[in-house]
Amino acid sequence: MPVIKGGEGAGLHLKRGQELAIVNTHGSQVVDLFVHNAADLGEIMSIQHSRNVWYRLQPKAGDQLWTQLRRPILTMVSDGSPGVHDTLFPCCDARRYEQLGVKGYHRNCADNWRAALRSLAIEPPATVPTALNLFMNVPVAADGSFKILPPVSRPGDRVTFRAEMDCVIALSACPVDMLPLNGPDCKPQDVEYLLS
Amino acid sequence: MPVIKGGEGAGLHLKRGQELAIVNTHGSQVVDLFVHNAADLGEIMSIQHSRNVWYRLQPKAGDQLWTQLRRPILTMVSDGSPGVHDTLFPCCDARRYEQLGVKGYHRNCADNWRAALRSLAIEPPATVPTALNLFMNVPVAADGSFKILPPVSRPGDRVTFRAEMDCVIALSACPVDMLPLNGPDCKPQDVEYLLS
Repeated sequence: MPVIKGGEGAGLHLKRGQELAIVNTHGSQVVDLFVHNAADLGEIMSIQHSRNVWYRLQPKAGDQLWTQLRRPILTMVSDGSPGVHDTLFPCCDARRYEQLGVKGYHRNCADNWRAALRSLAIEPPATVPTALNLFMNVPVAADGSFKILPPVSRPGDRVTFRAEMDCVIALSACPVDMLPLNGPDCKPQDVEYLLS
Repeated sequence: MPVIKGGEGAGLHLKRGQELAIVNTHGSQVVDLFVHNAADLGEIMSIQHSRNVWYRLQPKAGDQLWTQLRRPILTMVSDGSPGVHDTLFPCCDARRYEQLGVKGYHRNCADNWRAALRSLAIEPPATVPTALNLFMNVPVAADGSFKILPPVSRPGDRVTFRAEMDCVIALSACPVDMLPLNGPDCKPQDVEYLLS
């Protein structure tokens, strides 16, 4: 299976009907999933519009991800993980690390999204799309507050999506390493994916 | 005070330091709030990035709304309502009403946003920004599911914001009339606002 190094990203084309499995090889790595309509890169998977379909904070197997034009773009076919994913946070970006006090350049999911598209010879649009933050563990308390905890996913857990239209996909093995977002050791790990 | 008719919208300029109060005149009207940087309309208030500041589903008095460039654009100075606002739903749009089975044109918050900007001689960008859905009551259950209930706000409740940069603002008195989103009678009502 193709490997995405911890903290890095990958870009791929997914034809309508094709499936993409994302495998949490070591169990604790968050993977940001960005999806564009291949025929119109400005049509993007929108977390807000997808929630309007689910009426739930997190998707379950069988749920669809929708675009901002309210059309299905991916279906979550199966979820072999405990089903804990985040839809509340934006992806990390250069400015976020700067605000966290990091000196100099830090890899980030926004730049991984850009690099993923460029690896397919696609110039990324100006605005970073919303991402589904797979395996990211953000429990919401009764008062609406939330926090980031280490993932509860396990080595080998996989989530599979089917394309509902021809898609361009970017995956980012989130580079966060100053919070236990990617596990208690704060160390991004490799993940794998499989196209079928 | 200027009035926004139920189901309609308004556009306004807010200079840095100016305040905008939004008054729920009859108590049960949801108001979608869209905010742009006046100097760069592509910099917009982003609910995802604002949540990353709050670590909470809903803003409280003192919280800031941030743009996708992770800069403060508005501060919620005071909240005289019970503090129940929605950040999970996208604004309603023509396609949403079509999917709800409405025949013909139905007013919607996305078109109200467009008309609000055009009333200021500003051509709206292609992508509809995320909105803060003031007074919208979307309780989230322990399993992460949620539903839309009538607002718990009361006649005269007001929320006040201060501009942290020169802004262009669009307000929409949400036109939803087939769900009790704007109160049990499903009837959009007028709201008022005050610039100071």
